[in-house]
This record gives sequence, C-alpha cells and structure tokens, in this order.
Amino acid sequence: RFVEDAIRYGFPVGGGHGPINPVGRLIEEAERFKVLESMRRAVEILESMDISKYIPESQSNLVMAIDGADSLSDVAAIPGRIVRIYDGVKASEAPWFGASRHVANAVLTAMKFDPRVRSAMNLRYDERLIEAAKRLGWVVSFYDRREEPEEIKRLEGRTVPWGIEVAVKRAGGRVPDLVYHLGDWGKEPMILVFGRDSMDVVEKVRRLIAEASR
Amino acid sequence: RFVEDAIRYGFPVGGGHGPINPVGRLIEEAERFKVLESMRRAVEILESMDISKYIPESQSNLVMAIDGADSLSDVAAIPGRIVRIYDGVKASEAPWFGASRHVANAVLTAMKFDPRVRSAMNLRYDERLIEAAKRLGWVVSFYDRREEPEEIKRLEGRTVPWGIEVAVKRAGGRVPDLVYHLGDWGKEPMILVFGRDSMDVVEKVRRLIAEASR
Amino acid sequence: RFVEDAIRYGFPVGGGHGPINPVGRLIEEAERFKVLESMRRAVEILESMDISKYIPESQSNLVMAIDGADSLSDVAAIPGRIVRIYDGVKASEAPWFGASRHVANAVLTAMKFDPRVRSAMNLRYDERLIEAAKRLGWVVSFYDRREEPEEIKRLEGRTVPWGIEVAVKRAGGRVPDLVYHLGDWGKEPMILVFGRDSMDVVEKVRRLIAEASR
Amino acid sequence: RFVEDAIRYGFPVGGGHGPINPVGRLIEEAERFKVLESMRRAVEILESMDISKYIPESQSNLVMAIDGADSLSDVAAIPGRIVRIYDGVKASEAPWFGASRHVANAVLTAMKFDPRVRSAMNLRYDERLIEAAKRLGWVVSFYDRREEPEEIKRLEGRTVPWGIEVAVKRAGGRVPDLVYHLGDWGKEPMILVFGRDSMDVVEKVRRLIAEASR
Repeated sequence: RFVEDAIRYGFPVGGGHGPINPVGRLIEEAERFKVLESMRRAVEILESMDISKYIPESQSNLVMAIDGADSLSDVAAIPGRIVRIYDGVKASEAPWFGASRHVANAVLTAMKFDPRVRSAMNLRYDERLIEAAKRLGWVVSFYDRREEPEEIKRLEGRTVPWGIEVAVKRAGGRVPDLVYHLGDWGKEPMILVFGRDSMDVVEKVRRLIAEASR
Repeated sequence: RFVEDAIRYGFPVGGGHGPINPVGRLIEEAERFKVLESMRRAVEILESMDISKYIPESQSNLVMAIDGADSLSDVAAIPGRIVRIYDGVKASEAPWFGASRHVANAVLTAMKFDPRVRSAMNLRYDERLIEAAKRLGWVVSFYDRREEPEEIKRLEGRTVPWGIEVAVKRAGGRVPDLVYHLGDWGKEPMILVFGRDSMDVVEKVRRLIAEASR
Repeated sequence: RFVEDAIRYGFPVGGGHGPINPVGRLIEEAERFKVLESMRRAVEILESMDISKYIPESQSNLVMAIDGADSLSDVAAIPGRIVRIYDGVKASEAPWFGASRHVANAVLTAMKFDPRVRSAMNLRYDERLIEAAKRLGWVVSFYDRREEPEEIKRLEGRTVPWGIEVAVKRAGGRVPDLVYHLGDWGKEPMILVFGRDSMDVVEKVRRLIAEASR
Repeated sequence: RFVEDAIRYGFPVGGGHGPINPVGRLIEEAERFKVLESMRRAVEILESMDISKYIPESQSNLVMAIDGADSLSDVAAIPGRIVRIYDGVKASEAPWFGASRHVANAVLTAMKFDPRVRSAMNLRYDERLIEAAKRLGWVVSFYDRREEPEEIKRLEGRTVPWGIEVAVKRAGGRVPDLVYHLGDWGKEPMILVFGRDSMDVVEKVRRLIAEASR
C-alpha cells in the first residue's frame, strides 16, 4: 500500500509515474480532515438557513472533494442527505466520504475542467433561482437530458458526468456557478450550485436565495 | 371547541348533525396515541430490514391515519422521511402528525373507498416488485399521470388523490394492496403498498421484497 | 384486558371496585397523546434555551405523567435524556413512556400529595438557583440522603420517593416548586423543578435561570 | 501560524526548539483524520454491543487523542456522550475534537507516561468488572479522591489528571489497562479502560464484559 500510494502521489514529471513521494498519503489524509472541518461548519450554517422550500423532492446534498479527488470515496457528503423537516432542514448525519453519487459525480467532473471547484449543492429547480443567478452575474449553464447519447444512457452513473461536461463546454470551458437541467421522464429537474469549498457553496446559496426573494 | 368537536363526532343519524357526542374528542386523541404506538414499532422493524435499494430517490415515507381521518393533520408520518444511509435506512425523526403530503394524501383517498385501509408506504419503482406482488396474489393496480385531466393538474396536491381514485376504480372499487405509476416528466415512478395499519404495511413490504428476491 | 381496564378505571364509589367504566381505557390513551404533545412542544423550547451549564453530569430529563399515573410506564420522558452538546442541549430522542426512573419516580411520589403536579425536570445543583427560587417566592424544600433509613436504602429505586416525601412534608404537605438534595457518597447533588405539565416546568426553568443570571 | 506550527512540530534535537518542520501541520491534520476514522468504526461496534447496564449515571464517553496531543482540542470524543436508550446505547453525535473534558484529561495524563496509550472509555463502577480485569491479567490500578491534596481540589479540572498520575505510579509507572475510583461526596465511582486506539479500547471493553458475565 505504501508503494502504491507513493506512486499514486508521485510528482508528475514527464511521462510515466513521477518519483516516489512518501508525503502523498499524508497530504491526502490531511486534506480529508480539512474537508470534514469545512463541511461541518457549512452544514451548521445551512441548518440555520430558511431554505426548506428549495430542497428538492429527492432531497439535497452538499458535497466537497479533497484536492486531487478521483473517485466517489474522495468526496465528503451527508449520508442520508439534507432533509426537509416541517419548515426547516436537517443533515441526516455528520459528513463522511463516499456518501453521495449524483452530486459527488458532478463535482468530480467539474474538477476535470477546474480542479479548484471542489464543492456543490443541489437545489429544487425554480426559475426564480435561475433568474436571480443571472442578475448576480453568475456563470449559468444547463444540459438537456434528452440529448444524452444512447450509449451513455445505458451506462450506470454516466448521465451526470455527461451533463456537467455539456454544461461546462456550453459555458466556454469554465465551470459555471450554477448548472440546471429541466428533468426527463421520471427525473426531477434540478439546480446545482458549484464553489471552491463547502463554505463558499453555502454562501453562494444564501446570496442566490436572498436575490430570488427580493 | 367542545361543542364543535361534539358535533363533528356526532353519531350519524339521518340528516343534519347527529346528537352531541362528548366522547368524540377523546376517541380522536386515543386514536392518535394508538397510531403513534403502531408507527413506532413499525419504524423499528423497518430500520432493521435490508430495504435500502427499494428506497426511491425522493426517499420513502410510512404513514398511518387515525380512524375517520379527513385531513393531513390526521395522518402520522416520518418528518424528514425514511432515508437511505449507506446500506441501511433510518427514520429522520420520530413519527408525528402532518409530516407527509404525497403518501398521506394517497391514504386519505384510499380511506374514502375503504375506511379500514389507513396506512401506506412508498417504494422505488421496480418491475420485480410488481411481479412479486402478482405472484403473491395481491390486488395490483396503477395510474398513468399522462391521463390526468388538465383541470386537476392545475390544482396543487390533487394528482395523487386523482391517481389513487383511478387505481381503485380500475381494481373494481377495492383498495389495491399495491398501486404504481410509471412517472412523468420530472416525476419519479413509484410504488405504494397499502395496509390496515403501519405494522400490516411493514409486514407486506417484507413479504413483497422477500418474494422479489427469490 | 377490557374487563381488567374497566375495573381499573372504575369510578371510586365506596369500598371495592367501582362500577365498570368502559371509557377508562379511552381516557388513558387520550391522556397519553396529550402528554406527548405537551412534551414535544416543551422539548422544542428547551432546545432553544441557553441552559447547558445547568445540565448535571448525569444529564437532565424532563418528564410528564398522565393523569392518574401509577407506574413508570405512565410517565413520558426523553429516552437517552437531554444532553449537553458543546454549548447547547439536545433531546436524545423524541419523548416516550417508560424512559425515566429517577425523575419519573419523583413525579409519581409528588402526585400522591397533589395529583395536579405531573411534571418535573432535574438541573445541576447550583446555590444561585436555590436563591433565585427563594427570591421568586417559590416553595423550596430539600432532603438529605444521609437521613435515609437503612431499610429503604436496601431497596432498589426507593431513595427518590423517600426523599420527595420528606421534602413535601417539610413544606407542610405542599408539593414544592423546587426540591434539592446535596448529594451523598457517589451521588451527584441535584435540583428538581416541579410543575403541572411539561410546558409549565420549562417556563419555570426559564424564569429560574433568568432570575439566577440577574 | 505556519512558523508557529513549524516550531511546535520541530524535531526534538537537543535543547531549544528543533529545526523548522514544515510537515508538522500536515502530520497533525492527517492524524486528526485517522483518529476520526478509528472513532467512527469503534462507535459503530459499541452501538451494536449489549453494554447499556455498564453505562454510568453520568453516561459514557469514548475518546482518542492524536499522536502528540497536548490539549483537549487534540482529543476526539462523542459530543453529548454515549447514552443509554432503553436497553441499548447510542452515540449522541458523530465524534469530533474538544467534546470531552474528564475522559480526555485522563488520556492526556496517561500519554505523559506512555505516549502510545491514546484512547479510553469510562464505564459504570462494578466490582465484577474489576475482578474480571484481574482474571484477564490486566494491569489494574485506582485512586482515592479523598487523598486529593487541597491545593489541587481548588483548581478546576485537575482532579482527573492527579488521579490518573496516582494510579500510574501505583502501577509502577505503567499506564494500567483499567483505572477505577470509588467516588466521593457527590461524585459517581467510575472505571476507565485505556488502550492504544479506540478500536483497541472497544475490543478490551468487549472482553472485559464477556469475562464479567461468565
């Protein structure tokens, strides 16, 4: 495992694997702690916000990836998601890694275009949020699930990566602040807000909702 | 309030309100306790079952109405729903009244056809569950959201009551053991299992999943 | 069970059991619902109060008995108690019956002297709370565990009933608003606030702490 | 902060601070993640164990310090403690740092004698557990709160460190597997089980209880 990790974290120097980097594993674990710390604070703020009407039917999740993430187990999220309870919201559990697929996949894809964008949260689709984002000068993009190629549809878990890639390209290669899709047969339309870390995303969600409520 | 309740619970004797029934309010409150008690036991059993893969994207709820229920506040459910957490499920909160709309509305509609059917739970749509229900000899019915009349679609919260009514009529007026719909644009397909009380529903869900896994 | 309950709830008319009372069981179940409802609201208020420094080492509980309670299963409490979490407090679970021994026994004893006093909460012993209670004009009493007779000490769960009885008698037969004891070897000193229902107790705790903080 | 940390984590080379060590902060954060990971697994196992009757009145906590810990904020614990709920136990929250004083202080003191002993859990005092520990060949020691010097008693939070130091010295300088004290006026008697990490402690608790139940 040590050798394997050292190779995985090797410095990229030209072709092949870089030289052995014994600090790689340490960096990753330190990253994981920092991500959990950011998530904890972000969730505490979220739970105090008045956002229950923006939680989708399929509930919401807030995720944040470690630097250099390349799999779902590198992305922290809320196991059981963030749920509406009467007029409030509550994180079902404390954040941990590997607890999200959809939103985590969206972030892993965004990171391929901009490795600094490591966090996202999904919200109920609401046209007023889209308009608010535009008024705020955000980069807004979308994808249309009906345009998903058949060969991708057949693969489990490939729709979101495909969609985010489409949305990024539509935005000229930049990762948008907000990506939406209008749903499909059996699929709820959805909004995703992207940011650098979970605190950044929560702050953006707050501004977005405030703008939409003006 | 006393007089109002007494009238509401008056015995139905011919036209107009029946004679004053001072026990009505007592009966209702006793009912509420019994419903909570049944829900608590049912949730405890559910949490020990291996059903996470049958929890829909929009999560699940288990609901049970008091005898004679006529509004959402007469139906107990899980605030925050029953959520998937890794490979298990967890009730977000203890059961209480007024915590569900969709599944609770389904039960309120079913009760108009058979007042003894006071509980239901929704599951992820899966053809194997439908087939299992048929093998078990259950009454299975469905509705198609595309057939919903325009004037009903425009009304908030009327789709589920309309759909359940269609499904009951399709089953010859009996409340089915299982009702499904195949979704719509933006709407997840869904299965509903009906029963007399929450313990009955949980037991039926257990048998259904066991049969589907054979 | 019906006959048994009917006898248990029979009206007390002279010697022996009163006449059969078929409404008895209904009354009890209705009572249970009303107690849970009161507890839920009281807990919600408690969780918003700044009382973490008044939570004892052995944590706190808030309990409320049904009218006519005569056993621990007639007393609702917080399973897992009300715990300190950093600077706040949290009910471990939703209220249910049979979840407290010490505080519930205190209430069952108080009810023998005044059946209207059906709720209590325990707080960390703090002289300032005692003084505040006196300034508020409350009936304050106490017991000294060292004076507990040997034959009672040997019995499991008899200390609290003995102590409350001592405290009530010391107060001239009235159930005090506040009872304290100064502890014993291995036993944390404690304050108990009594009231008619859980909302009354929480309101009294709020006033007590406000007065102590002046 | 960087310079400060680098100094704090400087390699110990003779007198004064060692050379600047830029990896120090990284090591600490990586440690924090590993501690949380160990705690999560340990708590999951604890919650499945039948230990409710060994949970003290003041509830239990399981703590684990990072390597080189020197303050309470370096020790992970369960905020709200591990509470008894009917016949089971439940962690009130997910583990995090700075959530324990008593048990965390015990570990910080033990680490001064043996830096490898970084975890502990407290249990209800029960003579059968002491005897079981002896049968298992454990190092068992104790302290007597009545022997605590007056000048230490006056200081907030110094009792546990004093007691653990006494117990370690009584055991000839080794950190015992189990330390107990018999309580004091107002203080519950208690057992502490020490181990290298939280999984080690939980495994020891399991063996101890199994031996005591034989």
